[in-house]
Amino acid sequence: MKKLINKVEDVVTEQLEGMAAAHPDLIKVHFNPNFVYRADAPVQGKVALISGGGSGHEPMHGGFVGMGMLDAACPGEVFTSPTPDQMHEAAKMVHGGAGVLYIVKNYTGDVMNFEMAAELVAAEGIEVQNILIDDDVAVKDSLYTAGRRGVGTTVLAEKICGAAAEAGYTLEQVADLCRKVNINGRSMGMALTSCTVPAAGKPTFDLPDDEMEIGIGIHGEPGRERMKVKTADEITEMLALGIIEDGAYTRTVREWHNGEWTDVELTDPPFQAGDQVIAFVNSMGGTPVSELYAVYRKLAQICEAKGLKIVRNLIGPYITSLEMQGCSITLLKADDEILKFWDAPVKTPGLRWGV
Amino acid sequence: MKKLINKVEDVVTEQLEGMAAAHPDLIKVHFNPNFVYRADAPVQGKVALISGGGSGHEPMHGGFVGMGMLDAACPGEVFTSPTPDQMHEAAKMVHGGAGVLYIVKNYTGDVMNFEMAAELVAAEGIEVQNILIDDDVAVKDSLYTAGRRGVGTTVLAEKICGAAAEAGYTLEQVADLCRKVNINGRSMGMALTSCTVPAAGKPTFDLPDDEMEIGIGIHGEPGRERMKVKTADEITEMLALGIIEDGAYTRTVREWHNGEWTDVELTDPPFQAGDQVIAFVNSMGGTPVSELYAVYRKLAQICEAKGLKIVRNLIGPYITSLEMQGCSITLLKADDEILKFWDAPVKTPGLRWGV
Repeated sequence: MKKLINKVEDVVTEQLEGMAAAHPDLIKVHFNPNFVYRADAPVQGKVALISGGGSGHEPMHGGFVGMGMLDAACPGEVFTSPTPDQMHEAAKMVHGGAGVLYIVKNYTGDVMNFEMAAELVAAEGIEVQNILIDDDVAVKDSLYTAGRRGVGTTVLAEKICGAAAEAGYTLEQVADLCRKVNINGRSMGMALTSCTVPAAGKPTFDLPDDEMEIGIGIHGEPGRERMKVKTADEITEMLALGIIEDGAYTRTVREWHNGEWTDVELTDPPFQAGDQVIAFVNSMGGTPVSELYAVYRKLAQICEAKGLKIVRNLIGPYITSLEMQGCSITLLKADDEILKFWDAPVKTPGLRWGV
Repeated sequence: MKKLINKVEDVVTEQLEGMAAAHPDLIKVHFNPNFVYRADAPVQGKVALISGGGSGHEPMHGGFVGMGMLDAACPGEVFTSPTPDQMHEAAKMVHGGAGVLYIVKNYTGDVMNFEMAAELVAAEGIEVQNILIDDDVAVKDSLYTAGRRGVGTTVLAEKICGAAAEAGYTLEQVADLCRKVNINGRSMGMALTSCTVPAAGKPTFDLPDDEMEIGIGIHGEPGRERMKVKTADEITEMLALGIIEDGAYTRTVREWHNGEWTDVELTDPPFQAGDQVIAFVNSMGGTPVSELYAVYRKLAQICEAKGLKIVRNLIGPYITSLEMQGCSITLLKADDEILKFWDAPVKTPGLRWGV
């Protein structure tokens, strides 16, 4: 295993210590339980946005804590859900009197633990909402998931909802916006290589030297298909058409309403010619940005042919899988509200503009 | 070879096409000869900053074109110097009447071709200066270099001198500042894995599964030593002490003065307790940002023990070697002038803040 790490059991702690040392103006780190939080928290009168999940996807989520994005992020061990006490303690630290929104990627462990955290927070009289992100069109169910997995749209939701909270949106309004971003965002990823969880010490899966996996999950969960390595254009077409040609998708999610869990039916409408989109081309961690531009080149051609107008883009490693080589594409149908908050200033270790 | 590419001979062109499609508000791309240039070029009355070098180090240099940084960047084929006509045509496109500064990494081919370009530009009556970056303490001479190689300090020089040009510095002033950044900046890198140049189709060098190379060059040139893989702390210490304990370094460089090439003697003073530094922890391309934070953690401890005060930092993949795993560290002794221009707004595809 070739990594820039010390003892396997210290990997997450030491990376958090490095973040804290690097960005004292933006973030602080609380240990035991672990969470990253805004240096100026709590921001009084602002809805507090909190996310989290297994480590190994950096900069997501800790790198997205700061002005205009998250108030706190709760990292689990590598590829392992954080525990409810992390999200509970983080909420107590950062809530500013306007409620807490938990942004949760749809993995069974994350969903369960964020639900427990929400109940603990609600029991203390703090308003709370949990919104799921389930944007991965590749597979219906997965190794760790009932329904679709939460992937790239999470980054966009954290940016957009963070700006809305900064602008004074109420908890209900931020939750509505987050739900809208989720149902308008779709993603698919692929891997050229596997990755190695430090504690495992060997690659999560085997992928022969001439093969790739289309539809891979961000923890190396199986995707749609293994095949011989194809060209960037062919790969981009598989991912982009998988997203664009995906039909309406309806599912039931569990949301917290008026102090209890309620089943809510959501439907993601398909993309249609004439839609404006934010296009996000993401590196799985080991693929350099140069190759992402080859993907973006073809993606722009496909979107144009399909009548989708790319009005904003994000290109780089933002939701990674350790050192995995590969990429993912996310398209988010964008209206004026989404674009306004996308463009708003953000100042975090991992994403910054306008300030 | 596992990469997101199409035909090997189209790699650079298609990546440039992707950049042009992604960032029309910031940059344009000229083909045949190839260069990336500011969308709003020429900026009248501003010194024009131009850099370039082999492709494969993205986002450097094309990703650093835009307000507050470079006016143009000339990419060669992967790990291959650009040709003089690229730098010549770029200068004609972007010069705004206040002269042209070429920022040149110290590799024999780059130096020679930028010198030829300078002569062509000067022959047209445009004021021009070439400043070399030779900051890599690892080796004295290298496969492609007489003297020290130019590496991480290049990124910092492009940011700082770009801001100075934006603020109205004259050509002489920007050149002086660039020389100051170079003599105050030192770097060293290491590789956990090799990388594969597309046209070669196989790794540039072989590195066994349990070995790493300390002092590697950004083209995979041999470094100081091969050894068994060590911990992040041990690796960081080797790189940081290699930089901090490096003595005064004197060499003769060839600069263009009053219309002719003149030999100039430069001396890099060593770091001393009490110095303020900008610390730059860079990914070689395949190492994710999470591991860079483990390196930063130890680097901060070492700097503190040595009496160096880190006043700014940059952490991420900015000067890469394709998909190579590994990292480099750059320390730049910073005075008020350097910090003022470091903090100034920048808006490029690869580096952005303040705007």
